[in-house]
Amino acid sequence: MTPLALETNLIERIALGDLLRRRSRDTANKTAMVSYSEHGRSTVTYKELNQLSNQLVRGLREQGMVQGDSLALLATNSIEFFAVLFACYKGGFIAIPINFLQAVTDIHYNLSKANVKAVVCEPRFAPLTVDDSLTNISIRVSIGDSEGLTLAQLAAGQDSHDIDDIIIHDRDTAHIIFSSGTTSKPKGVETSHLSMYMASLSNPLSFGFNKYDSQLAVLPTFHCASLSICIMTLQLGGKLVLLPQFEPLNVARVLEAEQIQSTALLPVMWQALLALPNLKQFDFSQLTTGLYGMAPMPASSRRQLKAAFKNCRFHLVSGQSEFTPFSCTFYDDSDTEFDDANYWGVPSMITDQAILDEQGNELPPGQQGEICWRGPLVMNRYLDDVDASRKIREHGWHHTGDLGFIDNCGQLVFVDRKKDMIKSGGENVASVKVEQVLLSAPSVVQVAVFGVPHARWSEAVCAAVQIAPGQPFNEADIIQYCKARLAGFEVPKRIVSVETFPVTATGKIQKSTLKSQYEALFDE
Amino acid sequence: MTPLALETNLIERIALGDLLRRRSRDTANKTAMVSYSEHGRSTVTYKELNQLSNQLVRGLREQGMVQGDSLALLATNSIEFFAVLFACYKGGFIAIPINFLQAVTDIHYNLSKANVKAVVCEPRFAPLTVDDSLTNISIRVSIGDSEGLTLAQLAAGQDSHDIDDIIIHDRDTAHIIFSSGTTSKPKGVETSHLSMYMASLSNPLSFGFNKYDSQLAVLPTFHCASLSICIMTLQLGGKLVLLPQFEPLNVARVLEAEQIQSTALLPVMWQALLALPNLKQFDFSQLTTGLYGMAPMPASSRRQLKAAFKNCRFHLVSGQSEFTPFSCTFYDDSDTEFDDANYWGVPSMITDQAILDEQGNELPPGQQGEICWRGPLVMNRYLDDVDASRKIREHGWHHTGDLGFIDNCGQLVFVDRKKDMIKSGGENVASVKVEQVLLSAPSVVQVAVFGVPHARWSEAVCAAVQIAPGQPFNEADIIQYCKARLAGFEVPKRIVSVETFPVTATGKIQKSTLKSQYEALFDE
Repeated sequence: MTPLALETNLIERIALGDLLRRRSRDTANKTAMVSYSEHGRSTVTYKELNQLSNQLVRGLREQGMVQGDSLALLATNSIEFFAVLFACYKGGFIAIPINFLQAVTDIHYNLSKANVKAVVCEPRFAPLTVDDSLTNISIRVSIGDSEGLTLAQLAAGQDSHDIDDIIIHDRDTAHIIFSSGTTSKPKGVETSHLSMYMASLSNPLSFGFNKYDSQLAVLPTFHCASLSICIMTLQLGGKLVLLPQFEPLNVARVLEAEQIQSTALLPVMWQALLALPNLKQFDFSQLTTGLYGMAPMPASSRRQLKAAFKNCRFHLVSGQSEFTPFSCTFYDDSDTEFDDANYWGVPSMITDQAILDEQGNELPPGQQGEICWRGPLVMNRYLDDVDASRKIREHGWHHTGDLGFIDNCGQLVFVDRKKDMIKSGGENVASVKVEQVLLSAPSVVQVAVFGVPHARWSEAVCAAVQIAPGQPFNEADIIQYCKARLAGFEVPKRIVSVETFPVTATGKIQKSTLKSQYEALFDE
Repeated sequence: MTPLALETNLIERIALGDLLRRRSRDTANKTAMVSYSEHGRSTVTYKELNQLSNQLVRGLREQGMVQGDSLALLATNSIEFFAVLFACYKGGFIAIPINFLQAVTDIHYNLSKANVKAVVCEPRFAPLTVDDSLTNISIRVSIGDSEGLTLAQLAAGQDSHDIDDIIIHDRDTAHIIFSSGTTSKPKGVETSHLSMYMASLSNPLSFGFNKYDSQLAVLPTFHCASLSICIMTLQLGGKLVLLPQFEPLNVARVLEAEQIQSTALLPVMWQALLALPNLKQFDFSQLTTGLYGMAPMPASSRRQLKAAFKNCRFHLVSGQSEFTPFSCTFYDDSDTEFDDANYWGVPSMITDQAILDEQGNELPPGQQGEICWRGPLVMNRYLDDVDASRKIREHGWHHTGDLGFIDNCGQLVFVDRKKDMIKSGGENVASVKVEQVLLSAPSVVQVAVFGVPHARWSEAVCAAVQIAPGQPFNEADIIQYCKARLAGFEVPKRIVSVETFPVTATGKIQKSTLKSQYEALFDE
């Protein structure tokens, strides 16, 4: 590393740590974050956050961390989460935000696969990170009081000036987020500084956000969507308000008290807000952008939301860890061909969106194929998985693994996960379509449709349903209901009743688990 | 080049040609440009512009152009200018937008220095590109009817599909703009795809532009500022309205007729609009953002403008070819320490701005030094000038060559070009400060202040002034006027009257020419 190469890198690079340094220069004393926790409300300015992250880089170096080492982070939405994250970005350590809601074996798998050297976590999560197999972990730091080294001790006495002694390349891996593993072993998704930096500029253009907008983050920041929104807010010099968990009344209070302009929630969370008996007593006049994701929202719910939050527009955002969110958006009041469909909308400004057939040919509107994207939001690669990394980039496009088509208004309609399509008697059945019909059936509150091996149909359409408390479950009635609304080959051959579903930490139903559980359903 | 490398590049790269392809996908039939010329009003959609540029790539290849070759472009603001520019971006040809208002010797210098292989120009500019020394030019294409190959012929019959057979790296040079040479031989500034792409995302965030804003471009598109605004408008999928020259009444008509939301003009142009007798008859209610650059505007003019354009906010934008515009902005209604100063404002979201002393130390607010920037908007290098490219990046910062300081509100104040500072009797005199006093003197309409060698003071402060038509010029009176308003060492020792000033094609006064012209003023 010559001095000239270092100087050139400092000038021209795209590195996530630099965005915090820039805001620390031009909006130094503005509140960067407000964090609510059991200890109350705490705040940090851009200058303070920047200085703390610089101190943490030096503290971590003193403990033996060098550029390229991995650091796992287990923390709820908090100022500390971002101080450590930016320390990683600045020091060139690879941040591994860990989903602490996962099964402990999955956590160990993440830590082992990423060859983690340092673990920084809230005391309650510390036991989840201990296993005889995790021999590479040599540094353990506790967020908050604990017997060992604490985050405060790590920072104490360290120089708070900016880090200017390492070279960071645009496409160096900034962090790794492990996929939730709905269908296979979790994969580590390597995201570059460049991808997240580009998302932090294209997302505000997509949503019409300006400098200094205030954002409430309730979805966990270890998830790519929440992370992307948070970093965008810091890029804009906005106020990021953090809540460690969703509790409808508390969210309503914070939306009002912090004069929040935008927040992203799951559809069920928006619906829980709507169900608050005292909703009308709150002043939500500042809220202008409501984002929702992970699932579609029926048109009726959208209408209710718009009546309750009068100044607010509601957009569905989509993406995946492999393609830094958000790659596409279904905007409020979009022109569409169909009244109610699983719309994903139009691509972000810096993304191409196309439907490809198996041979890599682009398909015209109306024809169903795999949803593919191109653009700088794409991941670097899957960690230590050359084959999967290559396969996902066939034909010069990033393959999402999702099936869909583009309607005559140019809007993308999602059909199903490619792996969740059921091949029954030579016909393709979209599990999502069958699920929507089942959800509209009386007493059904939650559903998952999946294929089960069958001697005659190759796969048989099956459903697991959760019935409303106190209501009876009658398989024949529900099958009859479906027959009136679906093609014969789409009607479930069997419907089973379940109390709960196997879900990933982000709330996605694990169909692979259900498939294994019921794989012998049609055995003689 | 392996197939995999090509596929990966197509997916993840940042390349300017891709932005046109993306808009051609998602806003295909929207008007991309409206061009006014002596032939009337013509328009092009995003799809048409994209297809034309693809055809031009193939036409140019057929003529022998390969990736890395240089193409000079001499054209007024027009659809053809951008069709050729994007053909270069897509084909990996290096575009050289030539300032056709330069002296013909400078044009030859540009063409020779950039080793130009193809020239595409309007017929009237063709003679400017012919010289015995320009032996590398093997392809000549005419925009409009001419004896040789025309642009229409170049495109005719070519495949209009997107170009997908070459690798373009983020930091490949996209175009070279030659500096205007106020103080030295013009330098070729190499700008990367990445820099201009980043500017196209950060500029709209700076100005609060949304998708589909309409922009009027009157400033010549061979200039970095105008080019940057135009490419941003295309990135946003907006309507770009092009005028080949500034004529106040015509600009007012187009602003109204095209419902323009934003335009960038020189301060003298805004003032010419204000002077229109029938200004109040126009409906400018759509105009919300007025940009001005190259020179400050007195507070009184800004007030007049805001009264005349009621819905419009006026921002001063700054930058330089070496740091893709806009690196900083002085926003309307900014809080400032001084009422009227040469404010350049705050840096763009993706730029650090600092004042450095000669040793590279950052200076605190109030202290004067060199204005320095960091960030991905920085140029790649000066063409074939390793020493100058290295010198401008000393101490890990891009050096602008401008002097200034940051006020107590965090706003950058421009003091003078470093090279225009006059060292007189051991004191530093800012030519800009003296010019502002002279401009306020009765009858003075234009002024340039410069240093001339002097036996006693080393340099003597001198001024060239242009006097309003019909008014007398009295050197002693003006010197007296200055004495009442400036420190003794700042008062010009001599003031000369001139009819016109030597200017660059973008309207900057060439002080180096004046200095040479008057270098013997104090000789005995």
